[in-house]
This record gives sequence, C-alpha cells and structure tokens, in this order.
Amino acid sequence: MEQGTALSPPGEHGEHHVQHVDEFSITELVNRQIAATAPQRLAEIVAALTRHLHDFAREVRLSESELMAGIQFLTQVGQTCDDRRQEFILLSDVLGLSMLVTAQNNRKPAGCTEATVFGPFHVEDSPKHALGDDIANGAQGEPCFVRGAVKGLGGEPVANARLEVWQADEDGFYDVQYAGLDQSRARATLQTGTDGVYHFRSILANSYPIPHDGPVGKLLAALGRHPWRPAHLHFMITADGYETLITHVFRNGDRYLESDAVFGVRESLIAEWIRHPPGPGPDGSVVPVPFYTLDFDFVLNPLPGAAGKTRN
Amino acid sequence: MEQGTALSPPGEHGEHHVQHVDEFSITELVNRQIAATAPQRLAEIVAALTRHLHDFAREVRLSESELMAGIQFLTQVGQTCDDRRQEFILLSDVLGLSMLVTAQNNRKPAGCTEATVFGPFHVEDSPKHALGDDIANGAQGEPCFVRGAVKGLGGEPVANARLEVWQADEDGFYDVQYAGLDQSRARATLQTGTDGVYHFRSILANSYPIPHDGPVGKLLAALGRHPWRPAHLHFMITADGYETLITHVFRNGDRYLESDAVFGVRESLIAEWIRHPPGPGPDGSVVPVPFYTLDFDFVLNPLPGAAGKTRN
Repeated sequence: MEQGTALSPPGEHGEHHVQHVDEFSITELVNRQIAATAPQRLAEIVAALTRHLHDFAREVRLSESELMAGIQFLTQVGQTCDDRRQEFILLSDVLGLSMLVTAQNNRKPAGCTEATVFGPFHVEDSPKHALGDDIANGAQGEPCFVRGAVKGLGGEPVANARLEVWQADEDGFYDVQYAGLDQSRARATLQTGTDGVYHFRSILANSYPIPHDGPVGKLLAALGRHPWRPAHLHFMITADGYETLITHVFRNGDRYLESDAVFGVRESLIAEWIRHPPGPGPDGSVVPVPFYTLDFDFVLNPLPGAAGKTRN
Repeated sequence: MEQGTALSPPGEHGEHHVQHVDEFSITELVNRQIAATAPQRLAEIVAALTRHLHDFAREVRLSESELMAGIQFLTQVGQTCDDRRQEFILLSDVLGLSMLVTAQNNRKPAGCTEATVFGPFHVEDSPKHALGDDIANGAQGEPCFVRGAVKGLGGEPVANARLEVWQADEDGFYDVQYAGLDQSRARATLQTGTDGVYHFRSILANSYPIPHDGPVGKLLAALGRHPWRPAHLHFMITADGYETLITHVFRNGDRYLESDAVFGVRESLIAEWIRHPPGPGPDGSVVPVPFYTLDFDFVLNPLPGAAGKTRN
C-alpha cells in the first residue's frame, strides 16, 4: 500500500465504507446526501420526489433505453419553450398535475365558484376597459355579450373587484400566439361597480386544440388522446378581503366537456351561451348578425379575518 | 335551450356527464383518457408515472408557486442541453435514477464484474488502438499503465473482446468537454488477444466535479451536496456470447468514494493504483517521472444459450 499516504486525504485511506448500492438501497443513499442545512421545504420536496420517482422506475422496471427515451423527450420539451410558448406547463396540464395542484390549493366552501387551471395564456397588466366596452379589439368571432355579478359567499355584492378576462378567437388562438401581433385582443381588465356587476362585449368562445405540434402533442397522439379543450372564457378575479379566484366558464353543449385535454372542467362552471337573431343587443346597439349572451355570477371566498365582508 | 341544436354536435347536447374532479379523482380521470389502442408499454409507463407524480404532489401538498418553480427549473435544464452537454442525464444521475435503472437492468451472478452508470461522456466509434498504445493523445496527467484480463464467469479468457475506455484528464475534463477540440483524447477502443489480456498506457484518473454551472449544479448547491465524482476509468466491454458490461474502475483512497455525486460506486469496483518512482515502465520504456500502474480483471456474464463459453 505504498501509494496510500501519497494519494489519499489524511485519515481517509483504506477507511472508506462504501454502502451496498442496488435498485432498492439507492433511494435511501440519495436522500441521505441532502444536507441537514438545506432549506427544510426544498429538502422535503426533493426527498419525496426522489422516492416517488424511484418507486415509478422500479414498478415498471424501466429499461435503460426507456430512461434515455424519457430524457430525450424532456429535453425536447425544454427546447420547445420560448418567449411565446411554455411546453412544460402544457406537459403538466395534460398529465393532470396542474389541475391537481389547483384543486388542492383552492378548496373552497360550498357555494363559492370553483377554481380551475390557470393555463399558459394569461398576460400581466392587460388593457383596462370600462364596463360595457367591446374588448375584442379586432379578434375575429361572432359577437358575445357577457354579464354577471361578483358576490361574496353571503350574497353581498363585491364592489371594485378587479376582473381579468382572456379568451381564444374563432380560430382557437389567443392574441399572444400570433407572432408579430403586439396588441391585446379579446383580453381585458375590468372593475365591478358598487353593485358588483360586470359586463362587456367580446366574441364567442370556441373549442380549440392546445398547441400540439411539439413533443407534448406527439405524446398525446401516441396515447390516442385528442388535444382539444372545450370552449371557455378565462377569469381571474381579485378583491380586497376575498381569496383570488382563477377559473373558466365553459360553454354548455361543447363536445369536449367530458374529455378536456387538461382536465379543467367542473360541472359548476358550465353555463348556457344563448344565441340570438340579428337585432338589438343587450347594450342597446343594433347587431346586424346573430349574437350570443352569457350570464354568469361569481361567488368569492372571504379571507379569514375579513368577516365584515360576509353576511353574519 | 334554443341554442342547443345550433351549437352542439348531434346527440351530445345536454347529455354531458362531467366527472367530479378534485385532487384525488384527477388521477383516474387522466389515466382513463389513454386509448385502448395506445401501445401497451407506453400506456403502462405513462399511467404509472401519472400515479406516482400525483402521489408526490399530494404527499407534499405542492403549492401553485412550487409547481411553477419546478416547471421553470425543468425548462432551464432542457435549455442547458446542447451538442456537448446533456443536463437531463445529469439530473437523472444526481437523483440516483440512472444508477437505479443500471442496477435493475444489470443484475449479474456472483463473481461477475458489476455494472455502474454510463454517464454522458461516451463517444461512439472512438479510435482503435493496438494493445500497449498510449491512448492519452495529448491529454494531460501523470502516466498510468493499465492491464488486466477479460474473462468469462468460468474463468475462461475472452479473446477478441472489444474494450472501450474513456476518462477525464488531470483537470477533470473529458475531451468532448473542450470546445473546438475535434480529436479524441484519453479514449480508445482496444481488442483483447487470444489470452483475453488487454493493456494500454494513459494518464492518471483524478476525481472531478460534474458540470455544476447549470441548473443541476444550483440544485446540488441548494441541497448542500457537492458535485464531485471519485476518480475512475470508464469501460464498456462487448464480446460474442457475453452480456455487454458498462462499468467503472474506481481508485482506492479517493475522498469521494463514499459520496459520489451520481451514486455509481460499488465496493467491488474499487482498485489500487500503484505509484512508482521514475524508471522503467511495465512496457519496458523509461519513464522519467513518477507513474502509476493499475491491474484489473473483468468477468463477463455469459448469455443464455452461449453455454459453451462457460466452464461446465
């Protein structure tokens, strides 16, 4: 052992005790390497992820070529992301992970409007509009008039609620999906009046496929799954004293209500869009083509400590 | 319901039956969408992955911001990959997933050389060298002479075994990590003689950190884990009638033997590198500086049906 003293750090030569490693012992070996000084929540998440990931690989007896195929798939997902596209959100959505996380973080009392997935198409600081405005701003689609009230769980109107709305056009695209378009379309921030009421004009929501020309689309195709979402409007509603609500309103009769590609549909969020012949619209204007109306009220969950806002 | 007939596909209006979705029911909803026509193995893997991923998210009660942080992390991992770097392999390695998959796919009878992780630095068709060649080809490091035999489980020599070897230089880098270097260094393909023996000259292997300037390195730092691997040589050995062996030989005395960042160390793969003063090397040449020798025999697992190659 002449080389020992020259090569080894002091006190370590020949004293190593290498743990036996196999497909079972590896899980404990990995998690023992997390330092006691690591942030507690990060350590908890990584240790649990490692356990579940290992359980998965053992359960299916993942092969070496399957692991490599998975690595290549995830690499492609990452490389499909850019300023306009977030393919990993899409992957989380189609695996139901986004909806799971939404559901477990937004349990609400009975009577409150339920939450659903946020999706990748929200934009911060969308243009402010006055109640009654046409927010389409050039987005193509049949006219649609939307109105309703924002209420608290006790039925009280919520004044000055900030209501963000965004939706796809008749071709199934959001404004941010159009390369080179630098203006907002079918997207707005509104504020309720003292009566809690909101109303605006926009276009009819249609069902549309999620972006499916990338690796997530290929995965769906391989699984025999379609990429369609039922027609919906997105809403994010914030108001002092209430839990922020992120949700959709879905259009009754849509053929994809039972097979939303991202599992966001909840029965309570399905509403009737009423079709009307050409004629006077609800805002008094004459609409020369058929148009739709939607009425939908939102019920917000009061925050703890904001009890004065609820009916006692 | 005047809009029904106009809007709905035939036979679907008003007949939807939307399943209740919450953080528990979602798992079954997702997996029911996999078509019966999907390839059976793909369906099995995705369904199991979905279950384990959901179990993880429920167990830690993953928050919406934590999910988004995870999505951003994976996006960065994907975008760190390029022709020369595979950050997702690195992630699989540091989470112990690579070693788990290696272990469960390479169970071998007692007496066989054990397998370990492949790593991201193998190159197809590395230069062929004759036995005894110096394969360093300009890679910097102290001289090292390696020799040994390739045997079957019965002790028989394995003639004409194809032996690929690759290693890092004294700075801890593989040739492929040098931008602009278009030649192989410290990397070769050799063939055993009729006696099963191999021997070559190269450089001393040293411990080195895995690439840690990317998102995986940041994760390790956050967990209080170091990025080091103990010194090792990589071998891939293929021979007719035997299972291919992918493994390392580790250098005894290395300070990282018990804490390999990728969990690849197995006791049976640790060997002595003997240090010698300047003088005649094992190939008869005079070496004007201190040098090392390593002797290591490999024992291959006979393939079923190739019994003639084993001792009976």
